[in-house]
Amino acid sequence: MRDVLLEGERLDDLQNGYCLIQDPQKFCFGMDAVLLSGFARVRPEEKVLDMCCGTGIIPILLRAKTEGRDFTGLEIQEMCADMARRSVSYNHLEKEIRIVTGDVKEASAIFGRASFDVVTCNPPYMIGQHGLVNPHMPKAIARHEVLCTLEDVVSQAANVLKSKGRFYLVHRPFRLTEILGTLHEHKLEPKRMRLVYPYVDREPNMVLIEALYGGRSRITVEKPLIVYEKPGVYTREILETYGMG
Amino acid sequence: MRDVLLEGERLDDLQNGYCLIQDPQKFCFGMDAVLLSGFARVRPEEKVLDMCCGTGIIPILLRAKTEGRDFTGLEIQEMCADMARRSVSYNHLEKEIRIVTGDVKEASAIFGRASFDVVTCNPPYMIGQHGLVNPHMPKAIARHEVLCTLEDVVSQAANVLKSKGRFYLVHRPFRLTEILGTLHEHKLEPKRMRLVYPYVDREPNMVLIEALYGGRSRITVEKPLIVYEKPGVYTREILETYGMG
Repeated sequence: MRDVLLEGERLDDLQNGYCLIQDPQKFCFGMDAVLLSGFARVRPEEKVLDMCCGTGIIPILLRAKTEGRDFTGLEIQEMCADMARRSVSYNHLEKEIRIVTGDVKEASAIFGRASFDVVTCNPPYMIGQHGLVNPHMPKAIARHEVLCTLEDVVSQAANVLKSKGRFYLVHRPFRLTEILGTLHEHKLEPKRMRLVYPYVDREPNMVLIEALYGGRSRITVEKPLIVYEKPGVYTREILETYGMG
Repeated sequence: MRDVLLEGERLDDLQNGYCLIQDPQKFCFGMDAVLLSGFARVRPEEKVLDMCCGTGIIPILLRAKTEGRDFTGLEIQEMCADMARRSVSYNHLEKEIRIVTGDVKEASAIFGRASFDVVTCNPPYMIGQHGLVNPHMPKAIARHEVLCTLEDVVSQAANVLKSKGRFYLVHRPFRLTEILGTLHEHKLEPKRMRLVYPYVDREPNMVLIEALYGGRSRITVEKPLIVYEKPGVYTREILETYGMG
Protein backbone atom coordinates (compact mmCIF):
# COMPACT_ATOMS: atom_id res chain seq x y z
CA MET A 1 0.00 0.00 0.00
CA ARG A 2 2.83 2.40 0.69
CA ASP A 3 3.54 2.53 -3.06
CA VAL A 4 -0.01 3.40 -3.99
CA LEU A 5 -1.22 5.83 -1.35
CA LEU A 6 0.19 9.16 -0.26
CA GLU A 7 -0.27 10.54 3.23
CA GLY A 8 -3.92 11.17 4.11
CA GLU A 9 -5.21 9.06 1.21
CA ARG A 10 -7.30 5.94 1.44
CA LEU A 11 -8.30 3.21 -1.02
CA ASP A 12 -12.08 2.79 -1.38
CA ASP A 13 -13.64 -0.37 -2.79
CA LEU A 14 -16.20 0.68 -5.42
CA GLN A 15 -17.99 -2.69 -5.14
CA ASN A 16 -17.68 -3.22 -8.89
CA GLY A 17 -14.26 -4.83 -9.08
CA TYR A 18 -12.41 -1.52 -8.91
CA CYS A 19 -10.99 0.71 -6.23
CA LEU A 20 -10.54 4.47 -5.98
CA ILE A 21 -7.90 6.51 -4.22
CA GLN A 22 -9.39 9.43 -2.31
CA ASP A 23 -8.28 11.93 0.29
CA PRO A 24 -11.15 12.90 2.58
CA GLN A 25 -9.34 16.15 3.47
CA LYS A 26 -9.53 17.14 -0.19
CA PHE A 27 -12.61 15.79 -1.93
CA CYS A 28 -14.56 12.53 -2.01
CA PHE A 29 -17.02 11.65 -4.75
CA GLY A 30 -20.72 11.82 -3.98
CA MET A 31 -23.93 10.19 -5.09
CA ASP A 32 -24.10 12.63 -8.02
CA ALA A 33 -21.15 10.91 -9.73
CA VAL A 34 -22.71 7.49 -9.19
CA LEU A 35 -26.10 8.59 -10.53
CA LEU A 36 -24.52 10.28 -13.56
CA SER A 37 -22.66 7.08 -14.41
CA GLY A 38 -25.93 5.15 -14.13
CA PHE A 39 -27.76 7.67 -16.33
CA ALA A 40 -25.14 7.93 -19.11
CA ARG A 41 -25.22 5.50 -22.03
CA VAL A 42 -22.00 4.46 -23.72
CA ARG A 43 -21.76 2.03 -26.63
CA PRO A 44 -18.73 -0.22 -27.25
CA GLU A 45 -16.89 1.84 -29.87
CA GLU A 46 -17.56 5.27 -28.46
CA LYS A 47 -14.90 7.72 -27.30
CA VAL A 48 -15.82 9.34 -24.01
CA LEU A 49 -14.48 12.49 -22.36
CA ASP A 50 -15.18 13.20 -18.70
CA MET A 51 -14.66 16.90 -17.98
CA CYS A 52 -13.68 17.99 -14.46
CA CYS A 53 -12.93 14.34 -13.71
CA GLY A 54 -11.46 14.91 -10.24
CA THR A 55 -10.13 11.61 -8.89
CA GLY A 56 -11.45 9.73 -11.95
CA ILE A 57 -14.57 8.27 -10.41
CA ILE A 58 -16.81 8.67 -13.47
CA PRO A 59 -14.52 7.02 -16.07
CA ILE A 60 -13.91 4.13 -13.67
CA LEU A 61 -17.64 3.67 -12.94
CA LEU A 62 -18.48 3.94 -16.66
CA ARG A 63 -15.78 1.36 -17.46
CA ALA A 64 -17.53 -1.00 -15.05
CA LYS A 65 -21.13 -0.24 -16.03
CA THR A 66 -20.99 0.22 -19.79
CA GLU A 67 -19.36 -1.42 -22.78
CA GLY A 68 -17.24 1.70 -23.36
CA ARG A 69 -13.48 1.05 -23.46
CA ASP A 70 -12.08 4.43 -24.47
CA PHE A 71 -12.25 7.01 -21.73
CA THR A 72 -10.40 10.28 -21.20
CA GLY A 73 -10.58 12.27 -17.98
CA LEU A 74 -9.70 15.97 -18.01
CA GLU A 75 -8.78 17.58 -14.69
CA ILE A 76 -7.21 20.95 -13.97
CA GLN A 77 -5.81 20.18 -10.50
CA GLU A 78 -2.62 18.16 -10.89
CA MET A 79 -3.01 16.72 -7.38
CA CYS A 80 -6.41 15.22 -8.33
CA ALA A 81 -5.24 14.13 -11.77
CA ASP A 82 -2.31 12.33 -10.11
CA MET A 83 -4.66 10.52 -7.75
CA ALA A 84 -6.85 9.57 -10.70
CA ARG A 85 -3.81 8.22 -12.64
CA ARG A 86 -2.75 6.13 -9.68
CA SER A 87 -6.29 4.72 -9.35
CA VAL A 88 -6.32 3.86 -13.07
CA SER A 89 -2.98 2.16 -12.71
CA TYR A 90 -4.01 0.32 -9.52
CA ASN A 91 -7.03 -1.05 -11.43
CA HIS A 92 -4.91 -1.96 -14.50
CA LEU A 93 -7.04 0.27 -16.72
CA GLU A 94 -4.21 2.22 -18.39
CA LYS A 95 -5.24 1.02 -21.84
CA GLU A 96 -8.82 2.15 -21.41
CA ILE A 97 -8.64 5.29 -19.31
CA ARG A 98 -6.20 8.14 -19.71
CA ILE A 99 -6.11 11.14 -17.44
CA VAL A 100 -5.07 14.50 -18.88
CA THR A 101 -4.15 17.48 -16.73
CA GLY A 102 -5.65 20.55 -18.31
CA ASP A 103 -8.23 23.30 -18.22
CA VAL A 104 -11.75 22.47 -19.35
CA LYS A 105 -11.87 25.93 -20.95
CA GLU A 106 -9.24 24.66 -23.41
CA ALA A 107 -10.74 21.23 -24.06
CA SER A 108 -11.15 21.74 -27.80
CA ALA A 109 -7.59 23.08 -28.10
CA ILE A 110 -6.28 20.06 -26.20
CA PHE A 111 -8.32 17.34 -27.95
CA GLY A 112 -9.46 18.97 -31.19
CA ARG A 113 -12.99 19.71 -32.30
CA ALA A 114 -15.52 16.91 -32.90
CA SER A 115 -13.27 14.34 -31.28
CA PHE A 116 -15.64 12.56 -28.86
CA ASP A 117 -18.92 10.64 -29.13
CA VAL A 118 -19.86 11.22 -25.52
CA VAL A 119 -18.97 13.87 -22.94
CA THR A 120 -19.85 13.56 -19.26
CA CYS A 121 -19.50 16.20 -16.58
CA ASN A 122 -20.18 16.59 -12.87
CA PRO A 123 -19.20 20.26 -12.71
CA PRO A 124 -19.05 22.68 -9.80
CA TYR A 125 -22.64 23.56 -8.95
CA MET A 126 -22.43 26.74 -6.95
CA ILE A 127 -22.27 30.15 -8.58
CA GLY A 128 -19.36 32.40 -7.73
CA GLN A 129 -17.21 32.44 -4.67
CA HIS A 130 -19.63 33.76 -2.08
CA GLY A 131 -18.66 32.77 1.41
CA LEU A 132 -15.63 30.77 0.32
CA VAL A 133 -12.92 30.82 2.95
CA ASN A 134 -10.26 29.66 0.54
CA PRO A 135 -11.08 29.50 -3.17
CA HIS A 136 -7.84 27.61 -3.86
CA MET A 137 -8.85 24.53 -1.88
CA PRO A 138 -9.72 21.42 -3.90
CA LYS A 139 -13.17 21.19 -2.30
CA ALA A 140 -13.95 24.78 -3.23
CA ILE A 141 -12.78 24.23 -6.81
CA ALA A 142 -14.91 21.10 -7.10
CA ARG A 143 -18.04 22.75 -5.71
CA HIS A 144 -17.93 26.41 -6.75
CA GLU A 145 -17.49 27.96 -10.14
CA VAL A 146 -14.03 29.20 -9.26
CA LEU A 147 -12.10 27.92 -12.26
CA CYS A 148 -14.89 27.21 -14.74
CA THR A 149 -18.53 28.18 -15.27
CA LEU A 150 -21.48 26.25 -16.65
CA GLU A 151 -21.06 28.24 -19.86
CA ASP A 152 -17.42 27.06 -20.14
CA VAL A 153 -18.35 23.44 -19.63
CA VAL A 154 -21.27 23.47 -22.06
CA SER A 155 -19.50 25.43 -24.81
CA GLN A 156 -16.48 23.13 -24.65
CA ALA A 157 -18.65 20.01 -24.62
CA ALA A 158 -20.29 21.31 -27.81
CA ASN A 159 -16.86 21.93 -29.33
CA VAL A 160 -15.39 18.50 -28.69
CA LEU A 161 -18.52 16.48 -29.50
CA LYS A 162 -19.10 15.00 -32.92
CA SER A 163 -22.43 15.71 -34.65
CA LYS A 164 -25.17 13.78 -32.77
CA GLY A 165 -22.74 13.23 -29.92
CA ARG A 166 -24.23 13.07 -26.43
CA PHE A 167 -23.53 15.18 -23.38
CA TYR A 168 -24.41 13.91 -19.89
CA LEU A 169 -24.58 16.38 -17.05
CA VAL A 170 -25.52 16.24 -13.39
CA HIS A 171 -26.40 19.53 -11.73
CA ARG A 172 -28.66 21.25 -9.20
CA PRO A 173 -32.33 21.90 -10.03
CA PHE A 174 -32.22 25.53 -8.83
CA ARG A 175 -30.25 26.37 -12.00
CA LEU A 176 -32.52 24.44 -14.36
CA THR A 177 -33.64 27.39 -16.51
CA GLU A 178 -30.03 28.46 -17.04
CA ILE A 179 -28.87 24.89 -17.68
CA LEU A 180 -31.48 24.10 -20.34
CA GLY A 181 -31.03 27.54 -21.90
CA THR A 182 -27.24 27.29 -22.05
CA LEU A 183 -27.40 23.80 -23.58
CA HIS A 184 -29.92 24.93 -26.19
CA GLU A 185 -27.81 27.99 -27.08
CA HIS A 186 -24.86 25.75 -27.82
CA LYS A 187 -26.91 23.37 -29.99
CA LEU A 188 -26.79 20.75 -27.25
CA GLU A 189 -30.50 20.01 -27.25
CA PRO A 190 -31.79 18.50 -23.99
CA LYS A 191 -33.39 15.13 -24.86
CA ARG A 192 -33.71 13.30 -21.52
CA MET A 193 -33.98 14.67 -18.03
CA ARG A 194 -34.41 12.98 -14.70
CA LEU A 195 -34.94 14.62 -11.35
CA VAL A 196 -33.49 13.02 -8.23
CA TYR A 197 -35.75 13.32 -5.20
CA PRO A 198 -34.26 12.34 -1.79
CA TYR A 199 -37.73 11.14 -0.76
CA VAL A 200 -40.95 10.85 -2.74
CA ASP A 201 -42.38 13.85 -0.87
CA ARG A 202 -39.34 16.16 -1.04
CA GLU A 203 -37.93 18.64 -3.50
CA PRO A 204 -35.35 17.19 -5.90
CA ASN A 205 -31.72 17.99 -5.12
CA MET A 206 -30.13 16.80 -8.37
CA VAL A 207 -30.99 16.78 -12.05
CA LEU A 208 -29.55 14.45 -14.70
CA ILE A 209 -29.62 15.63 -18.31
CA GLU A 210 -28.75 14.06 -21.66
CA ALA A 211 -28.30 16.53 -24.52
CA LEU A 212 -27.81 15.70 -28.18
CA TYR A 213 -25.47 17.85 -30.25
CA GLY A 214 -27.57 19.08 -33.16
CA GLY A 215 -30.77 17.44 -31.88
CA ARG A 216 -34.33 18.70 -32.34
CA SER A 217 -36.14 20.43 -29.49
CA ARG A 218 -38.14 17.80 -27.63
CA ILE A 219 -37.31 16.46 -24.18
CA THR A 220 -38.43 13.35 -22.35
CA VAL A 221 -38.69 13.93 -18.63
CA GLU A 222 -38.25 10.51 -17.08
CA LYS A 223 -39.88 8.94 -14.03
CA PRO A 224 -38.63 10.32 -10.71
CA LEU A 225 -35.44 8.89 -9.27
CA ILE A 226 -36.11 8.50 -5.56
CA VAL A 227 -33.17 7.88 -3.27
CA TYR A 228 -34.58 6.78 0.07
CA GLU A 229 -37.47 4.48 0.87
CA LYS A 230 -37.22 5.78 4.44
CA PRO A 231 -34.35 7.28 6.46
CA GLY A 232 -31.28 5.09 6.06
CA VAL A 233 -32.94 2.73 3.56
CA TYR A 234 -32.13 3.16 -0.11
CA THR A 235 -34.71 2.40 -2.79
CA ARG A 236 -34.14 -0.66 -4.95
CA GLU A 237 -33.10 1.49 -7.89
CA ILE A 238 -30.37 3.23 -5.88
CA LEU A 239 -29.11 -0.10 -4.56
CA GLU A 240 -28.93 -1.38 -8.14
CA THR A 241 -27.10 1.75 -9.29
CA TYR A 242 -24.55 1.18 -6.54
CA GLY A 243 -24.23 -2.46 -7.61
CA MET A 244 -25.80 -3.67 -4.37
CA GLY A 245 -29.21 -4.62 -5.82
CA MET B 1 -82.72 24.44 -16.97
CA ARG B 2 -84.01 25.32 -20.42
CA ASP B 3 -82.97 28.93 -19.79
CA VAL B 4 -79.42 28.02 -18.86
CA LEU B 5 -78.40 25.21 -21.18
CA LEU B 6 -78.30 25.10 -24.96
CA GLU B 7 -78.67 21.89 -26.93
CA GLY B 8 -75.93 19.38 -26.23
CA GLU B 9 -74.78 21.18 -23.09
CA ARG B 10 -74.77 19.84 -19.56
CA LEU B 11 -74.33 21.38 -16.12
CA ASP B 12 -71.48 19.83 -14.13
CA ASP B 13 -71.22 20.17 -10.35
CA LEU B 14 -67.66 21.27 -9.51
CA GLN B 15 -68.04 20.01 -5.89
CA ASN B 16 -67.00 23.40 -4.57
CA GLY B 17 -70.34 25.14 -4.49
CA TYR B 18 -70.24 26.05 -8.17
CA CYS B 19 -71.36 24.48 -11.44
CA LEU B 20 -69.97 24.67 -14.96
CA ILE B 21 -71.75 24.50 -18.29
CA GLN B 22 -69.93 22.24 -20.73
CA ASP B 23 -70.62 20.64 -24.08
CA PRO B 24 -68.87 17.27 -24.39
CA GLN B 25 -69.05 17.53 -28.18
CA LYS B 26 -66.93 20.65 -28.01
CA PHE B 27 -64.52 20.62 -25.10
CA CYS B 28 -64.54 19.61 -21.43
CA PHE B 29 -61.97 20.76 -18.92
CA GLY B 30 -59.34 18.29 -17.78
CA MET B 31 -57.20 17.64 -14.75
CA ASP B 32 -54.69 20.21 -16.02
CA ALA B 33 -57.11 23.07 -15.25
CA VAL B 34 -57.79 21.69 -11.79
CA LEU B 35 -54.09 21.26 -11.01
CA LEU B 36 -53.25 24.74 -12.29
CA SER B 37 -55.90 26.25 -10.04
CA GLY B 38 -54.41 24.32 -7.10
CA PHE B 39 -50.88 25.47 -7.96
CA ALA B 40 -51.64 29.17 -8.49
CA ARG B 41 -51.59 31.57 -5.55
CA VAL B 42 -53.89 34.58 -5.49
CA ARG B 43 -54.07 37.12 -2.68
CA PRO B 44 -57.25 39.04 -1.78
CA GLU B 45 -56.60 42.32 -3.61
CA GLU B 46 -54.99 40.90 -6.73
CA LYS B 47 -56.36 41.28 -10.25
CA VAL B 48 -56.19 38.05 -12.18
CA LEU B 49 -56.37 37.40 -15.93
CA ASP B 50 -56.96 33.89 -17.26
CA MET B 51 -55.84 33.67 -20.88
CA CYS B 52 -57.50 31.14 -23.18
CA CYS B 53 -60.17 30.69 -20.50
CA GLY B 54 -62.44 28.41 -22.55
CA THR B 55 -65.61 27.74 -20.57
CA GLY B 56 -64.26 29.68 -17.58
CA ILE B 57 -63.21 26.74 -15.44
CA ILE B 58 -60.03 28.35 -14.05
CA PRO B 59 -61.55 31.65 -12.84
CA ILE B 60 -64.40 29.72 -11.22
CA LEU B 61 -62.03 27.27 -9.50
CA LEU B 62 -59.74 30.10 -8.38
CA ARG B 63 -62.74 32.00 -7.01
CA ALA B 64 -63.53 28.95 -4.89
CA LYS B 65 -59.97 28.08 -3.82
CA THR B 66 -58.32 31.45 -3.25
CA GLU B 67 -59.16 34.79 -1.69
CA GLY B 68 -59.06 36.46 -5.12
CA ARG B 69 -62.24 38.34 -6.04
CA ASP B 70 -61.27 40.06 -9.29
CA PHE B 71 -60.99 37.69 -12.23
CA THR B 72 -61.06 38.26 -15.97
CA GLY B 73 -61.26 35.45 -18.50
CA LEU B 74 -60.11 36.07 -22.08
CA GLU B 75 -61.40 33.70 -24.76
CA ILE B 76 -61.26 34.00 -28.54
CA GLN B 77 -64.14 31.64 -29.37
CA GLU B 78 -67.44 33.42 -28.80
CA MET B 79 -69.25 30.10 -28.34
CA CYS B 80 -66.96 29.21 -25.40
CA ALA B 81 -67.01 32.74 -23.98
CA ASP B 82 -70.82 32.63 -24.06
CA MET B 83 -70.86 29.33 -22.17
CA ALA B 84 -68.42 30.82 -19.63
CA ARG B 85 -70.62 33.91 -19.17
CA ARG B 86 -73.66 31.75 -18.59
CA SER B 87 -71.74 29.70 -15.99
CA VAL B 88 -70.63 32.89 -14.23
CA SER B 89 -74.19 34.12 -14.20
CA TYR B 90 -75.59 30.76 -13.03
CA ASN B 91 -73.15 30.90 -10.09
CA HIS B 92 -73.97 34.57 -9.34
CA LEU B 93 -70.33 35.56 -9.82
CA GLU B 94 -70.91 38.48 -12.22
CA LYS B 95 -69.30 40.95 -9.82
CA GLU B 96 -66.15 38.87 -9.45
CA ILE B 97 -65.61 37.26 -12.85
CA ARG B 98 -65.97 38.94 -16.20
CA ILE B 99 -65.50 37.13 -19.49
CA VAL B 100 -64.08 39.02 -22.45
CA THR B 101 -64.21 37.73 -26.01
CA GLY B 102 -60.90 38.52 -27.66
CA ASP B 103 -57.60 37.32 -29.05
CA VAL B 104 -54.82 36.55 -26.58
CA LYS B 105 -52.40 38.04 -29.09
CA GLU B 106 -54.06 41.40 -28.40
CA ALA B 107 -54.30 41.09 -24.62
CA SER B 108 -52.21 44.17 -23.88
CA ALA B 109 -54.19 46.21 -26.43
CA ILE B 110 -57.45 45.07 -24.83
CA PHE B 111 -56.49 45.48 -21.17
CA GLY B 112 -53.49 47.83 -21.23
CA ARG B 113 -49.93 47.12 -20.13
CA ALA B 114 -49.11 46.28 -16.51
CA SER B 115 -52.77 45.86 -15.62
CA PHE B 116 -52.79 42.51 -13.75
CA ASP B 117 -51.07 41.06 -10.68
CA VAL B 118 -51.53 37.47 -11.78
CA VAL B 119 -51.98 35.78 -15.14
CA THR B 120 -52.94 32.13 -15.52
CA CYS B 121 -53.03 30.07 -18.69
CA ASN B 122 -53.82 26.52 -19.76
CA PRO B 123 -52.84 27.02 -23.40
CA PRO B 124 -52.98 24.67 -26.37
CA TYR B 125 -50.11 22.20 -25.90
CA MET B 126 -49.53 20.72 -29.31
CA ILE B 127 -47.33 22.36 -31.90
CA GLY B 128 -48.84 23.20 -35.29
CA GLN B 129 -51.72 21.55 -37.00
CA HIS B 130 -50.25 18.17 -37.88
CA GLY B 131 -52.90 15.54 -38.37
CA LEU B 132 -55.76 17.88 -37.56
CA VAL B 133 -58.93 16.90 -39.42
CA ASN B 134 -60.58 20.25 -38.84
CA PRO B 135 -58.53 23.07 -37.35
CA HIS B 136 -61.67 25.16 -36.85
CA MET B 137 -63.18 22.80 -34.30
CA PRO B 138 -63.20 24.02 -30.67
CA LYS B 139 -61.29 20.93 -29.50
CA ALA B 140 -58.56 21.52 -32.06
CA ILE B 141 -58.28 25.19 -31.09
CA ALA B 142 -58.03 24.26 -27.41
CA ARG B 143 -55.38 21.59 -27.96
CA HIS B 144 -53.26 22.72 -30.91
CA GLU B 145 -51.45 25.97 -31.52
CA VAL B 146 -53.90 26.93 -34.26
CA LEU B 147 -54.80 30.42 -33.10
CA CYS B 148 -51.96 31.20 -30.69
CA THR B 149 -48.47 29.94 -29.90
CA LEU B 150 -46.56 29.61 -26.64
CA GLU B 151 -44.62 32.71 -27.66
CA ASP B 152 -47.88 34.68 -28.06
CA VAL B 153 -49.15 33.62 -24.65
CA VAL B 154 -45.87 34.33 -22.83
CA SER B 155 -45.17 37.65 -24.52
CA GLN B 156 -48.69 38.89 -23.79
CA ALA B 157 -48.55 37.67 -20.18
CA ALA B 158 -45.35 39.71 -19.78
CA ASN B 159 -47.08 42.73 -21.32
CA VAL B 160 -50.15 42.73 -19.10
CA LEU B 161 -48.38 41.83 -15.84
CA LYS B 162 -47.24 44.46 -13.38
CA SER B 163 -43.64 44.39 -12.19
CA LYS B 164 -43.22 41.35 -9.90
CA GLY B 165 -46.52 39.99 -11.17
CA ARG B 166 -46.86 36.22 -11.37
CA PHE B 167 -47.64 33.99 -14.32
CA TYR B 168 -48.99 30.47 -13.79
CA LEU B 169 -48.81 28.03 -16.66
CA VAL B 170 -49.64 24.35 -17.13
CA HIS B 171 -48.04 22.63 -20.11
CA ARG B 172 -46.48 19.41 -21.37
CA PRO B 173 -43.00 18.37 -20.21
CA PHE B 174 -41.80 17.54 -23.74
CA ARG B 175 -41.62 21.28 -24.44
CA LEU B 176 -39.85 22.16 -21.18
CA THR B 177 -36.68 23.61 -22.72
CA GLU B 178 -38.72 25.88 -24.97
CA ILE B 179 -41.10 26.85 -22.16
CA LEU B 180 -38.38 27.87 -19.69
CA GLY B 181 -36.41 29.59 -22.46
CA THR B 182 -39.41 31.57 -23.74
CA LEU B 183 -40.36 32.66 -20.22
CA HIS B 184 -36.80 33.76 -19.47
CA GLU B 185 -36.58 35.70 -22.75
CA HIS B 186 -39.66 37.68 -21.81
CA LYS B 187 -38.33 38.46 -18.29
CA LEU B 188 -40.82 36.03 -16.80
CA GLU B 189 -38.31 34.20 -14.66
CA PRO B 190 -39.39 30.65 -13.69
CA LYS B 191 -39.43 30.48 -9.87
CA ARG B 192 -41.43 27.34 -9.03
CA MET B 193 -41.98 24.23 -11.07
CA ARG B 194 -43.83 21.04 -10.31
CA LEU B 195 -43.98 17.93 -12.45
CA VAL B 196 -47.15 15.84 -12.47
CA TYR B 197 -46.50 12.10 -12.65
CA PRO B 198 -49.51 9.82 -13.30
CA TYR B 199 -47.83 7.17 -11.13
CA VAL B 200 -44.67 7.33 -9.03
CA ASP B 201 -42.88 5.12 -11.58
CA ARG B 202 -44.03 6.87 -14.77
CA GLU B 203 -42.90 9.80 -16.85
CA PRO B 204 -44.64 13.08 -15.99
CA ASN B 205 -47.36 14.22 -18.38
CA MET B 206 -47.85 17.76 -17.12
CA VAL B 207 -45.71 20.55 -15.74
CA LEU B 208 -46.86 23.47 -13.59
CA ILE B 209 -44.78 26.63 -13.60
CA GLU B 210 -44.84 29.91 -11.69
CA ALA B 211 -42.82 32.72 -13.25
CA LEU B 212 -42.12 36.12 -11.73
CA TYR B 213 -42.04 39.16 -14.01
CA GLY B 214 -38.63 40.72 -13.44
CA GLY B 215 -37.47 37.97 -11.05
CA ARG B 216 -33.93 36.69 -10.57
CA SER B 217 -32.85 33.40 -12.11
CA ARG B 218 -33.34 30.71 -9.50
CA ILE B 219 -36.04 28.04 -9.61
CA THR B 220 -37.44 25.77 -6.94
CA VAL B 221 -38.46 22.43 -8.34
CA GLU B 222 -41.10 21.13 -5.96
CA LYS B 223 -41.84 17.61 -4.76
CA PRO B 224 -43.47 15.38 -7.37
CA LEU B 225 -47.23 15.61 -7.78
CA ILE B 226 -48.41 12.05 -8.18
CA VAL B 227 -51.92 11.45 -9.47
CA TYR B 228 -52.72 7.79 -8.83
CA GLU B 229 -51.94 5.60 -5.85
CA LYS B 230 -52.93 2.66 -8.06
CA PRO B 231 -55.24 2.37 -11.09
CA GLY B 232 -58.53 4.10 -10.32
CA VAL B 233 -57.38 5.38 -6.92
CA TYR B 234 -56.30 9.00 -6.62
CA THR B 235 -53.60 10.03 -4.18
CA ARG B 236 -54.66 12.05 -1.16
CA GLU B 237 -53.20 15.22 -2.66
CA ILE B 238 -55.29 14.88 -5.83
CA LEU B 239 -58.42 14.21 -3.80
CA GLU B 240 -57.70 17.34 -1.79
CA THR B 241 -57.14 19.38 -4.96
CA TYR B 242 -60.51 18.22 -6.24
CA GLY B 243 -62.05 19.13 -2.90
CA MET B 244 -62.77 15.49 -2.07
CA GLY B 245 -59.99 15.03 0.51
